[in-house]
Amino acid sequence: MNKYLITGFSGFVARHFVEYLENHEKPCMVKGIDILRPDFNINHYKNVKISFENMDLLSKDRIKHIIDEFQPNYILHLASFSSVAFSWNEPVQSFKNNTNIFLNLVDAVRKLNLLNTRILSIGSSEEYGTVNKEKLPLREDDRLNPVSPYAVARVAQETLSRVYANSYNLDIVMTRSFNHIGPLQNSVFVVSSWAKQLVELKKAGKSRGRMVTGDVSIVRDFTDVRDVVRAYYLLLHNGCKGQVYNVCSGSGFPLKDIIDMMAGQLNVEVEIHIDPRLIRPADNRIIIGSNEKIKQELGWENRIPLEQSLQDIIKYWNTHTN
Amino acid sequence: MNKYLITGFSGFVARHFVEYLENHEKPCMVKGIDILRPDFNINHYKNVKISFENMDLLSKDRIKHIIDEFQPNYILHLASFSSVAFSWNEPVQSFKNNTNIFLNLVDAVRKLNLLNTRILSIGSSEEYGTVNKEKLPLREDDRLNPVSPYAVARVAQETLSRVYANSYNLDIVMTRSFNHIGPLQNSVFVVSSWAKQLVELKKAGKSRGRMVTGDVSIVRDFTDVRDVVRAYYLLLHNGCKGQVYNVCSGSGFPLKDIIDMMAGQLNVEVEIHIDPRLIRPADNRIIIGSNEKIKQELGWENRIPLEQSLQDIIKYWNTHTN
Repeated sequence: MNKYLITGFSGFVARHFVEYLENHEKPCMVKGIDILRPDFNINHYKNVKISFENMDLLSKDRIKHIIDEFQPNYILHLASFSSVAFSWNEPVQSFKNNTNIFLNLVDAVRKLNLLNTRILSIGSSEEYGTVNKEKLPLREDDRLNPVSPYAVARVAQETLSRVYANSYNLDIVMTRSFNHIGPLQNSVFVVSSWAKQLVELKKAGKSRGRMVTGDVSIVRDFTDVRDVVRAYYLLLHNGCKGQVYNVCSGSGFPLKDIIDMMAGQLNVEVEIHIDPRLIRPADNRIIIGSNEKIKQELGWENRIPLEQSLQDIIKYWNTHTN
Repeated sequence: MNKYLITGFSGFVARHFVEYLENHEKPCMVKGIDILRPDFNINHYKNVKISFENMDLLSKDRIKHIIDEFQPNYILHLASFSSVAFSWNEPVQSFKNNTNIFLNLVDAVRKLNLLNTRILSIGSSEEYGTVNKEKLPLREDDRLNPVSPYAVARVAQETLSRVYANSYNLDIVMTRSFNHIGPLQNSVFVVSSWAKQLVELKKAGKSRGRMVTGDVSIVRDFTDVRDVVRAYYLLLHNGCKGQVYNVCSGSGFPLKDIIDMMAGQLNVEVEIHIDPRLIRPADNRIIIGSNEKIKQELGWENRIPLEQSLQDIIKYWNTHTN
């Protein structure tokens, strides 16, 4: 029976990954790890037997003990302080809770000599940093030029992955994951936050409203989380050791278009107010990735169009308040 | 009066840097920091008033307090677990004691808003990693491909330096320092270790002996530590913010030649035995740097030829036992 260790288990990506296992994998076991307890019932799955450990990956002895006991075939390392904004304010915390937690994890696997445990290290499109328009879409062999503390931490994680794969012979595959969206995403993330605000407007019976945002002319490449977790499953099972893969849709949309699409779906009108305090230093204007590598090597494709994702996110906020 | 904060104060580079200040700087103050106490008398300098703090840079509150109190004009960050071999055995320790200590240091400067404090971040030629012969000599804008945990930590430090310089406006200059040698260097480093062994052979009245080594066909670029500290002084005073500079001689020598030169100077014969256990994984065959940038921008040059360095190292071991 396949055993999956999932860090960052209480986040929305893990939840979707478990859904994927429930529907597409043979009966399997999952050990979830997170500093926060999951807000869903881990016992309601038929196909997936889940246990949970409430812990901080900065405790290196504890993570080693858990891995030794569970002996996972697969490790999906989702745990991350993934907010770029947070990293500007608390660079040391951000760095430790990205790079150092990963380092503790892979070093535990090294010390236990689990050379057949496949690890998927999740990275970020932020690693590419500031790039010229003519370099788009971003490809895996492009030069990395991280501009935020968060991005530096992610690059360090990827570089460590390479050393652990090439020199210690650990079975690690890496991603550079672009923005992902979908139902269940926390409303600290923009698209989810906007959907929530628009739904609240609609629920209040208003047909127009005001929204305070950062710079909405920037362009991002969004993938539905359900396509993302399928990519992670494929990479865990068939990705090439030591290789890095973009996980992205290959298309870019200005954030403003996202707001307009959702407002259109809800049939409300929105006036956007830019708050300069919400504009980040050194932000990238346009991020669009190439997904040729993962398509060609693994036959992955992004199936859920943006409109569908946004509709499902709105549906989610219609029935939830957080 | 200029105030210099020097981390890694008890190492041999700091000692030579203080000698340089004693002979070339106006009266100045130095605050030394190290986890080990210095093994020399810090009060015997006329020109340099030294105080010392015995501390670990992983204590971030303490380093912040010390910087706040001392208000340095210059920070020379020499502290490092600089052994590549150690990093293979203890990657987590190596990473923390390179990257995390640096991060604590620069983040303290950021929080104290000391935008006029010039910081010199010492990096390593190891950052370049494995390169093809035709790419030599290594230039600052070459792609980095670190292959050891130590090298990854150094790359992370340099990337963090860039973010702190460009986005937080800290006044940081970076180096990639190649191998340096000279009197006072600890005998855990190869050249110093060989010199010590050869001197002991000579002292024992023998004219021939046996030496156990790793791979001595690899080529390295050696600079005398006294040239290195002059480079650091120039970079602290005139280096360009946010820029990285190679500190190297521009010439490569096989390690075997170093042994032969020293044996020749001592008039002893040596038989070399290669111990495969001393050969590191993923070691670079040839490392030679270009020093064009620091020469052109700062007028630095390496003045002490290799033969002279080796002679002085031998002279040092003639009068010291550790």
